[in-house]
Amino acid sequence: MNKDLILLGHGSGGTLSHQLLDDLIVPTLSDIGEEEQNDAAVLILEGRRLAFTTDSYVVDPLFFPGGNIGTLAVNGTVNDLAMMGARPLFLSASLIIEEGFSRQELAAVLASMRAAADAAHVRIVTGDTKVVPRGKADRLFINTSGVGVLEHDLEITGSGARPGDKVIVSGTVGDHGIAVLAKREGLELESDIESDCAALHGLVAEILGEGEAVHVLRDPTRGGVATTLKEIARQSRAGIVLDETALPLKPAVKGVCAILGLDPLYVANEGKLLAIVAAEAANAVLERMKGHPLGRDAAIIGEVTGENPGRLELETVIGGRRAVEMLAGEQLPRIC
Amino acid sequence: MNKDLILLGHGSGGTLSHQLLDDLIVPTLSDIGEEEQNDAAVLILEGRRLAFTTDSYVVDPLFFPGGNIGTLAVNGTVNDLAMMGARPLFLSASLIIEEGFSRQELAAVLASMRAAADAAHVRIVTGDTKVVPRGKADRLFINTSGVGVLEHDLEITGSGARPGDKVIVSGTVGDHGIAVLAKREGLELESDIESDCAALHGLVAEILGEGEAVHVLRDPTRGGVATTLKEIARQSRAGIVLDETALPLKPAVKGVCAILGLDPLYVANEGKLLAIVAAEAANAVLERMKGHPLGRDAAIIGEVTGENPGRLELETVIGGRRAVEMLAGEQLPRIC
Repeated sequence: MNKDLILLGHGSGGTLSHQLLDDLIVPTLSDIGEEEQNDAAVLILEGRRLAFTTDSYVVDPLFFPGGNIGTLAVNGTVNDLAMMGARPLFLSASLIIEEGFSRQELAAVLASMRAAADAAHVRIVTGDTKVVPRGKADRLFINTSGVGVLEHDLEITGSGARPGDKVIVSGTVGDHGIAVLAKREGLELESDIESDCAALHGLVAEILGEGEAVHVLRDPTRGGVATTLKEIARQSRAGIVLDETALPLKPAVKGVCAILGLDPLYVANEGKLLAIVAAEAANAVLERMKGHPLGRDAAIIGEVTGENPGRLELETVIGGRRAVEMLAGEQLPRIC
Repeated sequence: MNKDLILLGHGSGGTLSHQLLDDLIVPTLSDIGEEEQNDAAVLILEGRRLAFTTDSYVVDPLFFPGGNIGTLAVNGTVNDLAMMGARPLFLSASLIIEEGFSRQELAAVLASMRAAADAAHVRIVTGDTKVVPRGKADRLFINTSGVGVLEHDLEITGSGARPGDKVIVSGTVGDHGIAVLAKREGLELESDIESDCAALHGLVAEILGEGEAVHVLRDPTRGGVATTLKEIARQSRAGIVLDETALPLKPAVKGVCAILGLDPLYVANEGKLLAIVAAEAANAVLERMKGHPLGRDAAIIGEVTGENPGRLELETVIGGRRAVEMLAGEQLPRIC
């Protein structure tokens, strides 16, 4: 492994990504500490709080069951704003197109972006289009950035988990990553697995009804539930214990993971969130989530402890406990 | 020419870019009319005006005399905010890196971004990093999006040019495009040509001292001065007449253009702006610009007329007039 070169794993969202971010990118570009690293930045403009976020999408294939790069680009950025408790308002759309890309496919992606934006009540207000010569990009990359507004005084941040808090996931895990993988590799599955790609700010609005009991919200995309919870454990200097038996998992996703040797805890989601909430409000949050179409399969999957700050542990089916680390290397490249 | 495929020229900033934008991208993604298409969107949040913009940078080579993709990514987006008369405040930075890219070069680009952001008094507050497999991107692409605030009530927009207004350019044209081209093609030049890459919001603040006399500000990047003025002529439904003899041009740039058959009116700039201002304030604006380090070579290069709405004409050295169209096809790909 050549330390002087960027590797695929540096884009995994896992350990290598964090090393590159922590050692080089974040300290060079900004003065933001680990504790403050969230899905979006919170800007204060004359006493008003805005959220601002960006993501580039390089998913392969461009079209997959349940969505395409366009729906992903809109919903993903909407979700990053929502995870700060912000109401998403405005998006930018910047396209990098490979020369020779099909205009028809471009039109289909753009139509999906518009439909997703309309559904999420956000407006695409500014954009950019670049074209690079054949072979210098892979068909289409999309960047979306987003601006939203925080309409409350809550502090929702990755450093907010406290001992005793419960960890709730809004539904089945791994659907997006496995749907993209199955399409890319041409796997013949008995039942179709669809990406869960969806805008989560409506679900977040429900959850925020519990007010200050809501400590952390984060969508487990690249790196999956395990990597996201490990990040939160570190940021909050708390331990997190996950109950493996409680993890909602579609049988088809479980099956593909078993066959391919993938751990669903590390597989990306695009329409799920993790909420870490005060214990006394956990059931209320769970009920609110179950009452929303995107939270029907929500489940309490773990809790925050005061022991072992920064450690994520899995309580296994057979009753043991093992430490869970961030995704090492790259499990599924170009999943988003 | 296959109409079903995206061509390099669709990224030129010229005629094909406008066709793709007007026929497909803008109507699909938004309800923004031609008149309202500016370098940044102006958002109204509780009576306060914000500017929001995005650009992806795919310049080749990554490093060139006078800058690199990092300085370009920061200054370019700062300038798009500045052209709305906004004070740039916050940037996002999203990287798409090709597997195998040099970590050392990445570090150099990031350091340049930070230096440019510090110099422009903007903060990089959020980001994203993707890595794609070897051969699926060309080393490094950067998207920056920006948020700024409008601290005045002026309406500065591409549709604001009025008959009688003067057209001012802030300095010599074509420096950036020719610097990048010379580096890419390995041209041996007698004197170095450097990119003019710079943040223009300080210069804009000077110009805004003339208040309502300032009607349009725009930076002539892709497509150059000709394409930008043609856009403004269309948006304002006015004619613009350019005086060829008045155009500030470095002898070295003029020389390369002559040898290669390039028209400097179509060559990209990254540290120049066009200001269209009321005739009675033109000299005052010019003096303000000349008093700023980035406007020393500013010159009045033309005027707006009530004849021939949408038409851009060049008054040539020998006294004739010819219509100038937007850049057709692609003159210099991947210049930004």
